[in-house]
Amino acid sequence: MHAQQPSEPFMRRALALAEQARGRTSPNPMVGAVLVKDGRIVGEGYHRRAGEPHAEIEALRAAGEEARGATLYVTLEPCCHYGRTPPCTNALIAAGVAEVHMAMLDPNPRVAGKGRAALEAAGIRTTVGLCEDEARALNAAFIKWVTTGRPLVIAKFAMSLDGKIAAHTGDARWISGETSRIYAHHLRNEVDAILVGVQTVLADNPRLTTRLPNATDVRHPVRIVLDSRGRAPLDAEVFQPTLPGRTLVATTSAMPASHRAALEAQGVDVLVCPSVHGRVALPALLDELGKCEITSLLVEGGGTVLGSFFDAGLVDEVVAFIAPMVIGGEHAPQPVGGHGVARVADAWRLDDLRVERLGDDILVRGRVRHPHAENE
Amino acid sequence: MHAQQPSEPFMRRALALAEQARGRTSPNPMVGAVLVKDGRIVGEGYHRRAGEPHAEIEALRAAGEEARGATLYVTLEPCCHYGRTPPCTNALIAAGVAEVHMAMLDPNPRVAGKGRAALEAAGIRTTVGLCEDEARALNAAFIKWVTTGRPLVIAKFAMSLDGKIAAHTGDARWISGETSRIYAHHLRNEVDAILVGVQTVLADNPRLTTRLPNATDVRHPVRIVLDSRGRAPLDAEVFQPTLPGRTLVATTSAMPASHRAALEAQGVDVLVCPSVHGRVALPALLDELGKCEITSLLVEGGGTVLGSFFDAGLVDEVVAFIAPMVIGGEHAPQPVGGHGVARVADAWRLDDLRVERLGDDILVRGRVRHPHAENE
Repeated sequence: MHAQQPSEPFMRRALALAEQARGRTSPNPMVGAVLVKDGRIVGEGYHRRAGEPHAEIEALRAAGEEARGATLYVTLEPCCHYGRTPPCTNALIAAGVAEVHMAMLDPNPRVAGKGRAALEAAGIRTTVGLCEDEARALNAAFIKWVTTGRPLVIAKFAMSLDGKIAAHTGDARWISGETSRIYAHHLRNEVDAILVGVQTVLADNPRLTTRLPNATDVRHPVRIVLDSRGRAPLDAEVFQPTLPGRTLVATTSAMPASHRAALEAQGVDVLVCPSVHGRVALPALLDELGKCEITSLLVEGGGTVLGSFFDAGLVDEVVAFIAPMVIGGEHAPQPVGGHGVARVADAWRLDDLRVERLGDDILVRGRVRHPHAENE
Repeated sequence: MHAQQPSEPFMRRALALAEQARGRTSPNPMVGAVLVKDGRIVGEGYHRRAGEPHAEIEALRAAGEEARGATLYVTLEPCCHYGRTPPCTNALIAAGVAEVHMAMLDPNPRVAGKGRAALEAAGIRTTVGLCEDEARALNAAFIKWVTTGRPLVIAKFAMSLDGKIAAHTGDARWISGETSRIYAHHLRNEVDAILVGVQTVLADNPRLTTRLPNATDVRHPVRIVLDSRGRAPLDAEVFQPTLPGRTLVATTSAMPASHRAALEAQGVDVLVCPSVHGRVALPALLDELGKCEITSLLVEGGGTVLGSFFDAGLVDEVVAFIAPMVIGGEHAPQPVGGHGVARVADAWRLDDLRVERLGDDILVRGRVRHPHAENE
């Protein structure tokens, strides 16, 4: 028996519910669920945080007896395995839900479809694909991580309209405006880790914490400093044990053992990675971060680091703040250094471009097109 | 006796009429005029081209006897002197126009207000200032030229989202998309002159003509090559006598006399300018161009030339095309070279920013804020 034609507004409601937990569910996906009976929402919920109930369970609890015969709209295929919580499929079957519309299957290739099959086997009618693009965009980080074992890599920079991230003197205060800077802290609040190069530590000595005015539930992503030889000094702000959250130095065997010991004594984690041409091998670093359940990585620069990530083809998304000013200078630093592509035809093109005004600045976001990506 | 409260829609109509002649009236301003009687337009017109009738005369002719007792909306103060055509004030007085609403006074400080005074002296009621901002924006080039003797300088560049105008190899085809390239030809169609540096001639060998599909009235601005020492070869495309319009080389006394003679023999004009550090002194060049009735100059690059114009504080407007791609490369060319500002606080800030999508690209236009400009 076929499911009824699903209703898009209910799935959009489920997506909006899921979105409320952005930055809070990692390494789990964001999921929202809405139970509908006779065209009316009888229960809804979303996954708030890893270890807490799944969205479906929240919706079932809210609906109570009304769940019997109801239709579920859920942004991701319900799970059918025991994880930190029991399988949702069992709960849905037990509650007597009649239909399940899921925006997408579980992207984990070892799971995909099994939750749906369990529901179908119990006589529940199902559909897949309503608002699938939105659901995939919502969980881009989770999908990347669960399918590749690596975090989603977001390249972020702020530049002048002529493409400078500082004046030739190094002065960079402030290229982007207040609104952009707050937005940048919201980005930090949503990702699992942020990364800068040693040059940024030496030049700007940033703390890399999340600073949001009036926020009660601020999240400090893991701070990662890429420092192949151990040049960042022990008294750098980012290494101070008083900072909230965790700092990690990604380095190579070229870091002196004494420096490593001193960092660890300050509570800084040190990850020794394979090296390529004396630098941290970025693919290996991403694999390691993935193993640590880091599903999203915001690379904040500077130009050398962003250049390395692009040169290695490892960037998934770009967030650029463009300030309405011209700095000029052939020696002024640029947002993306490295080697670069040799032909414009081989440039990293962005899809799903979003262009907004942020105060006086222009915000441009896009997804890097990977011509031969398997999981797009 | 005071004029009646003017009606903005009629002035907007006059502005729209004036706009129709964009790029065609130089060195005159664009002007539109609407004659209104009993709330109804009885005649309208615009200045089509230097040497042809002024907007007011067109409107009077269209209105005929209806002009008597009518109200004129005109985007610029009517002239009261004999130029290529007789004074409009005389014609308005003779036609019996009752009221004149002008968006702005004539910006020429030696004229400003005299046309109005002549009308008032004849008993015509007048106002000034309705839609003045729009009128000033419309004639930014004319205003700059008539008040300073120099053309309005528009810096134009097309870059990737990471601020590169080419790959490190020099390859630049194509950073901007088809829609942006057509827009760029529309820009050429509107200005009196365009300028590139010798490096652009050597690297790209451009023709610098205006190429617009299906256009019947294409205008080829004066092509200017900045070539202080005479390095651009005689067989460069831009020097070929078969090109429509005129080419000028701005150089210094360092250009060999034989090269100059050869250029001139090909029909290329050579302007020997004072030099500063071996380069053409740009303020002197702008003065010379102004004397040639060039009211607007589109500086198309490359980075060295745009850097020189910014370093000298000579840029009035910026038009940037940003393509949704990342090229990368610390040695990839940038849109604005030169020395650059030393502090971000001293960067050239843009006002009246317009951000639009042009196909896949982003178009950003703005007016450079000159902190101590006298004529703003």
